[in-house]
Amino acid sequence: MSFSVTILGSNSALPTSDRYPTAQILRVSERFFLIDCGEGTQMQMRKNKINFSKIHHVFLSHLHGDHIFGLMGFISTLGLLGRNKKLTIHAHPDLKDLLEPQLAYFCEDLPYAIEYKDLTFDSPKIIYEDKKVIVESLPLSHRIPTCGFIFREKPKEPNIRKEAIYKYNLGIADIVSIKNGESFYDDKGREVDMNKLVIPAPKPRSYAFCSDTRYFRKIIPAITGVDLLYHEATFLHELKDLAKSSTHTTAKQAATIAKDANVGKLIIGHFSSRYKDLTPLKNEAMEVFENVDLALDNQQYFIE
Amino acid sequence: MSFSVTILGSNSALPTSDRYPTAQILRVSERFFLIDCGEGTQMQMRKNKINFSKIHHVFLSHLHGDHIFGLMGFISTLGLLGRNKKLTIHAHPDLKDLLEPQLAYFCEDLPYAIEYKDLTFDSPKIIYEDKKVIVESLPLSHRIPTCGFIFREKPKEPNIRKEAIYKYNLGIADIVSIKNGESFYDDKGREVDMNKLVIPAPKPRSYAFCSDTRYFRKIIPAITGVDLLYHEATFLHELKDLAKSSTHTTAKQAATIAKDANVGKLIIGHFSSRYKDLTPLKNEAMEVFENVDLALDNQQYFIE
Repeated sequence: MSFSVTILGSNSALPTSDRYPTAQILRVSERFFLIDCGEGTQMQMRKNKINFSKIHHVFLSHLHGDHIFGLMGFISTLGLLGRNKKLTIHAHPDLKDLLEPQLAYFCEDLPYAIEYKDLTFDSPKIIYEDKKVIVESLPLSHRIPTCGFIFREKPKEPNIRKEAIYKYNLGIADIVSIKNGESFYDDKGREVDMNKLVIPAPKPRSYAFCSDTRYFRKIIPAITGVDLLYHEATFLHELKDLAKSSTHTTAKQAATIAKDANVGKLIIGHFSSRYKDLTPLKNEAMEVFENVDLALDNQQYFIE
Repeated sequence: MSFSVTILGSNSALPTSDRYPTAQILRVSERFFLIDCGEGTQMQMRKNKINFSKIHHVFLSHLHGDHIFGLMGFISTLGLLGRNKKLTIHAHPDLKDLLEPQLAYFCEDLPYAIEYKDLTFDSPKIIYEDKKVIVESLPLSHRIPTCGFIFREKPKEPNIRKEAIYKYNLGIADIVSIKNGESFYDDKGREVDMNKLVIPAPKPRSYAFCSDTRYFRKIIPAITGVDLLYHEATFLHELKDLAKSSTHTTAKQAATIAKDANVGKLIIGHFSSRYKDLTPLKNEAMEVFENVDLALDNQQYFIE
């Protein structure tokens, strides 16, 4: 089952020809979540062969243009494609007032409904849940109210070993209770080693998206142990004062967060367009935390 | 002196990964005019190394999303680049009401002014003029009020031949009057052949942009004889009924307009995304009018 992030845009506010503003697709098996929606999102989705009809939830970290100027085009295109299923947008409550006049003018015959789910910015909160995935908002610290998002697979049940079904003559009730982790006793009353009964479920995977934010250590408990952390790293640390005044993070700071939160891997992004070559940002981060990748447009990052 | 059109987006409402929604740059020597501003315009401008600061006038044919969803990103980026010169947007009067609330929210510190120039849609009208260029609006026939635009170089003065200056001992007053086309007489009172005095000015060049529109023959007088005509050709003629009902044009119809207006060259664009291969559209047009090119993203078309 696939768990991957596709970067649609990796740059900060001034896009370049090959680094679009922020947007990502998180894929969790057959679920596709759109995270932020910078200008050009729909074209990047085409480039990455993302099926538009599979997106039902959009998560917008904050209402700065470079994170949402692709939204009208995306919404309009969904309508032209004949969508009829509801689209849910998780965003700051201001979004509705900003969007509705435009929708009324440009998309008057939109064949599907838009549901607005208001984010709150005081503490982490579960904002989405289905059978397989939980999404949690994670307040960040930026010029305006901003949330990161943590996507977690729910724990899966272990699979019963086929040979065990025959050996111990397991009925449905047995299987259900074993899958629930309850002990099983053979016909001689001996407890059977769980490893002989089940193939353990894979560890649930997790992804945290943290952009835009100043260096904000308060997020560490919430993201501790995630498999993959995307954290903004707008600047090199030599511009730490600019990072601070513009409420952004340096590569070194992002790596420090990754290290202290003991994450599996760090992807840095939201690069200032002053950096033509991104290698120094990666190198700076790797001095603190080894497992770092650059967010590059149209690249997919898998969690196995 | 360069006179060229750069296609930033060639597709109709549903962009593909390599055919963005409508936007073009018309370059007339050192003037750069932006025509329409579909989503992704600023990234395409980067790709084509267009200098943002050289754009002072934006011409928006109509207020459909695929022609203006790049506007907020473009305006915002100009601000981040520190622009202080006024930007003039020629558009339907509704634009201001649509844009201002977004500007107030997303670009509160915009360091430059936006001037709105309202288009009218009843008859052609000169909407811009400077020392070298005249721009005329050209009402089209589409679902909503829509204007094409005709860009014409002003006639240039001929250049005085250097040898004539010496031969006839021309003073400044002589030169001014010769450049104005007045007859010149040598010291024996004989009228001098103008070709001996001047190198004739190159013929003023012209470009007409016609999108979106149904097959609308009323535009022919206004565009007659232009050097380059961009005309929408959303569909092949086998879909002429769909073209009619959606107020668009077929390739054959666009070519008929080009032929009957006796233009120098036709570029067709605004392609429906149903066409992966655009060759049939070009071939269809060429059956009617020989000099046809496809509008292709990031391609530049020169008028010599």
